[in-house]
Amino acid sequence: MELKKIGDVKFVEGGVCAAKGFKANGIQCGLVHAGASLTVKKNDLAMIVADDECSAAAVYTTNKVKGAPIIVTKKHLENGKARAVIVNSVNANTCNADGVKKAEMMCSLTAEALGIDENDVIVASTGVIGQPLPIEPIANGIPALVEGLTYDGNPRAVEAIMTTDTMPKEIAVEFTLGGKTCTMGGMLKGSGMIHPNMATTLTFITTDAAVSPELLQRALSDVVKVTLNRVSVDGDTSTNDMVCVMASGAAGNKELTAENKDFDVFVNALYNLMLNLARMMARDGEGATKLIECRVSGAVSEKSAEIIAKSVITSSLLKSMIFGEDANAGRIYCAIGYADVDFDINKADIAVASVAGKVILGENGCVVPFSEEEAKKVLEAEEIQILVSLGEGTGSAVCWGCDLTYDYVKINGDYRS
Amino acid sequence: MELKKIGDVKFVEGGVCAAKGFKANGIQCGLVHAGASLTVKKNDLAMIVADDECSAAAVYTTNKVKGAPIIVTKKHLENGKARAVIVNSVNANTCNADGVKKAEMMCSLTAEALGIDENDVIVASTGVIGQPLPIEPIANGIPALVEGLTYDGNPRAVEAIMTTDTMPKEIAVEFTLGGKTCTMGGMLKGSGMIHPNMATTLTFITTDAAVSPELLQRALSDVVKVTLNRVSVDGDTSTNDMVCVMASGAAGNKELTAENKDFDVFVNALYNLMLNLARMMARDGEGATKLIECRVSGAVSEKSAEIIAKSVITSSLLKSMIFGEDANAGRIYCAIGYADVDFDINKADIAVASVAGKVILGENGCVVPFSEEEAKKVLEAEEIQILVSLGEGTGSAVCWGCDLTYDYVKINGDYRS
Repeated sequence: MELKKIGDVKFVEGGVCAAKGFKANGIQCGLVHAGASLTVKKNDLAMIVADDECSAAAVYTTNKVKGAPIIVTKKHLENGKARAVIVNSVNANTCNADGVKKAEMMCSLTAEALGIDENDVIVASTGVIGQPLPIEPIANGIPALVEGLTYDGNPRAVEAIMTTDTMPKEIAVEFTLGGKTCTMGGMLKGSGMIHPNMATTLTFITTDAAVSPELLQRALSDVVKVTLNRVSVDGDTSTNDMVCVMASGAAGNKELTAENKDFDVFVNALYNLMLNLARMMARDGEGATKLIECRVSGAVSEKSAEIIAKSVITSSLLKSMIFGEDANAGRIYCAIGYADVDFDINKADIAVASVAGKVILGENGCVVPFSEEEAKKVLEAEEIQILVSLGEGTGSAVCWGCDLTYDYVKINGDYRS
Repeated sequence: MELKKIGDVKFVEGGVCAAKGFKANGIQCGLVHAGASLTVKKNDLAMIVADDECSAAAVYTTNKVKGAPIIVTKKHLENGKARAVIVNSVNANTCNADGVKKAEMMCSLTAEALGIDENDVIVASTGVIGQPLPIEPIANGIPALVEGLTYDGNPRAVEAIMTTDTMPKEIAVEFTLGGKTCTMGGMLKGSGMIHPNMATTLTFITTDAAVSPELLQRALSDVVKVTLNRVSVDGDTSTNDMVCVMASGAAGNKELTAENKDFDVFVNALYNLMLNLARMMARDGEGATKLIECRVSGAVSEKSAEIIAKSVITSSLLKSMIFGEDANAGRIYCAIGYADVDFDINKADIAVASVAGKVILGENGCVVPFSEEEAKKVLEAEEIQILVSLGEGTGSAVCWGCDLTYDYVKINGDYRS
């Protein structure tokens, strides 16, 4: 998948270990689904550790059911500081009786092994909801996990957070603050229960830039809104999703404490990183064969454009039609039409585009004659753009989704067993 | 599918011809999808005609994209009177340049053939959006359609409104008003683009009861809220959906003009009719193998209960898991948790039930140990109940949906060609 580059930023190799002073590791500690026969043959436990204490910020799911790790991490990040991340897949540690206690144990075991304060540990879990979390495999695994921490351990770590993901998702960017070269890297897991309402996924970002906790939180909250919160795979907002960022300051720049030009550079780096992680997540949505990007322009406001773009990317009928490569233009108008926002449908133009070209499907609320052959060619690509022009103002927004396929049903028809 | 009976009402044979004085017919006039190779081998044009002028009422889609027939029917029903219905499938007559003109032509051709006023004709269309409606097959077909009208023509008519429906959906009930036996019958088409927001489908109801247009509209609007508006197949609110009812008065009862006991009897008859049509629609949702009924109780209000129940029945993850007969309890909590309404998840109990029994899956927001074997047995049934108890108040609501299957994707991957 081609990376999108916005403004002045340079993509570099790596993930959460790209920034100076971050070690990571991932191992298979042996978590299994209680009551199910599935043996997970991949890493299931990861750790990220900074050489020194970091500024830290996070954004969490808006689901009223919150995973136990969310509750514990929120508490630990009250002071805006962190040193390490411990995260497991397979079991979400949610909707069970002693989840908070287990999440706290994950932090204290990690802190003990690293010789740090347990309040400096970020904890996260992803996997099946509603099962007791067996703490033994994690407790038994942590010594080996710590033992194997390296400054290039990101591939082992990213494997450990994958669930139904078909590929690891990591990325890193380089940028300059006050003459110092800074690096930022991140990893993300999808790929079901993905819907735009706060974080929508597990994402871990590290940077060696020096940024105050307040500014770090502000940057993260702003960038989440236009990246991860604009992705939907299936309309389901997960209980455990979280994006967190740790900034160590090892790059040696003067700490960012105000919204100046350097802050803009930092925000842009974070935006490039999260934009591409968001697109990777959508492209690797459960069962997906195509990335759908809906670009709405000419709306009365950005908010209005976003609501319409989300309505398009979440439509099951539209998602199925993209899978079938069928230019059923009426379905695009239909999905625009039930977006919960006011506008004049009689001014709306629609088109589809991809590397194969662009085909106008509708003007002023009416489907126009178009070449089915050309439209089919456009829809055969792996990245499909749906362009909506409303002619009412200057508001615009881009949202990302994926097609709805047989495999989505297959994956979710028997996820547990 | 077993009919649900609420209160004092008797189910009888038939559909839109069950009530005295209503003829119907359906023919294949030869509508085809422009630009596609599909030949529809079934009736595609239907008519319903009352012997005398009727009180009439309707409820329409809330989609901002409105099919041309919706615009014309709304105008014709301003006086609360109607005599006939003309309806086609295959082409939705929506998002095209001259849709309103074509819809008006359908009415005037019908009126001419029947010798009635064109303002007394209800027009509806369902099918592909965004194609010009060829009026010739309809104009050529109307004489034969009128010629073949009979007092038992409902099976031909119901076939003509089907699109991806796998079975015709019709029903009739008998009730007594002021000592007179009245009958009410209806037919409905699903089965994609079905989401709770006004009518959500094409539904035609006829009755020989005498009811004023005002009371008829009030009864219809109230009953739609707790029946058709509580169904979701795929979250897509169609552009053309409409439910209309015609009341002829041929039963000879004194016209209902006030909300008295007789009105309650009438509303209950309408409720039984539409409740069962709603359940039939959900069960026959595109690709569906199971009916999902979510019953929420103990909410602070009925509205709150409805929002939570809708959140459950529209969850793609939950719908896939029901298809896979997998009792993944965490997904139920997850879908409850992202419902856009306030409540304490820590008081929420959940269970699944069917003819095979009932299994408690969660209490006080936590998944409890349960027999996977028993849960599997419950989920193997064709009608699955998901029971949610919130312990906060007396509000309750029931919503209906269906599972998400390979066939949904197949049907919608290439609907047009």
